[in-house]
Amino acid sequence: MPRTGRRPGESGTQQAILDAARAAFTGTGYDGATVRGIAREAGVDPALVHHYFGNKEHLFVEAMQLPFDPAVIIPALLAPGIDGIGERITRMFLTVWGSVERNNPFIGLLRGAMTHERSATMLREFVTKAIIGRVTAALDVEQPQLRANLVASQLIGLAFTRYIIRIEPLASTPTEDVVTAVAPTVQRYLTGDLSAADSRA
Amino acid sequence: MPRTGRRPGESGTQQAILDAARAAFTGTGYDGATVRGIAREAGVDPALVHHYFGNKEHLFVEAMQLPFDPAVIIPALLAPGIDGIGERITRMFLTVWGSVERNNPFIGLLRGAMTHERSATMLREFVTKAIIGRVTAALDVEQPQLRANLVASQLIGLAFTRYIIRIEPLASTPTEDVVTAVAPTVQRYLTGDLSAADSRA
Repeated sequence: MPRTGRRPGESGTQQAILDAARAAFTGTGYDGATVRGIAREAGVDPALVHHYFGNKEHLFVEAMQLPFDPAVIIPALLAPGIDGIGERITRMFLTVWGSVERNNPFIGLLRGAMTHERSATMLREFVTKAIIGRVTAALDVEQPQLRANLVASQLIGLAFTRYIIRIEPLASTPTEDVVTAVAPTVQRYLTGDLSAADSRA
Repeated sequence: MPRTGRRPGESGTQQAILDAARAAFTGTGYDGATVRGIAREAGVDPALVHHYFGNKEHLFVEAMQLPFDPAVIIPALLAPGIDGIGERITRMFLTVWGSVERNNPFIGLLRGAMTHERSATMLREFVTKAIIGRVTAALDVEQPQLRANLVASQLIGLAFTRYIIRIEPLASTPTEDVVTAVAPTVQRYLTGDLSAADSRA
């Protein structure tokens, strides 16, 4: 667990670690980056990196200023079980995004992934490990990874249309109405029959 | 309709029009840009813009090098009626994206919308007019615009995850399997009950 009390003088070291982490993640991807290599670039002992930022995943969350911590959020969503999980995931996602400012570095991360192969790799590896890996480990269904991918596709698209290009009326629709409309999609992707051609109106 | 036969010497004029169009759309948005203003910037008569590129919408499609023409694709998808429309839309969308190169200018358009307010406005206005407007005009359901917004959210997210960051196994799943998994979502958004809490497995 990262320390929260910070003495004067520590901030320069922490900033050097965060800068080295960003460079490492962007340069070699999430899987390729190591705490040891990041510590070396920052000129500190790896133990200090762990001391300040915990493990590699949490260092990524801090370095990229993610608006959420998958290690906290995902277990909380999964804990009550499969029933209503679509609704819980959708509501949590909308709540987090509703608090993200337009100039949040996280938006830059998504933007980078659209043009730079390395950024796309980094984002893909992190999403796969930290988010999709946790969800699929908890699901007792066939094709758990494809299911988690499909959920990601709906939620990322929802963020883009509602919060980034802000198409109307979606952008102004109350959160709970969006939850009601989208949660059945997320629930079906996670627990429904994906191979059945179900085009009921 | 734009001319297709192009004599030598015309290409410089056409390029000047396209450059002026890109600047106008980016600068004042899709709604704010006019064929007259674009012609003035390019130093040509508005009639020549219409002659080469048809109306404003088609000029946008050409200037932004969109991989599809909504004026052609959307009526074709809507023509057979509401039955199976989710499947037709999803299949067409995946087919178009499957042919888009990573360095397509269209990707730059999406990227721009993530950081620049003006680009977001331009994309929102175009999507609203040229795509959502056509779909909602053909749907005899309540909340047609919100429904079209929700479809856009799913399809844009599908493009991002499958073709841009390429998460697996979604990126490698055969198109028809993705159609089977996603089409019921699109169908439900367009014709289903959006207010019912339907969390069946």
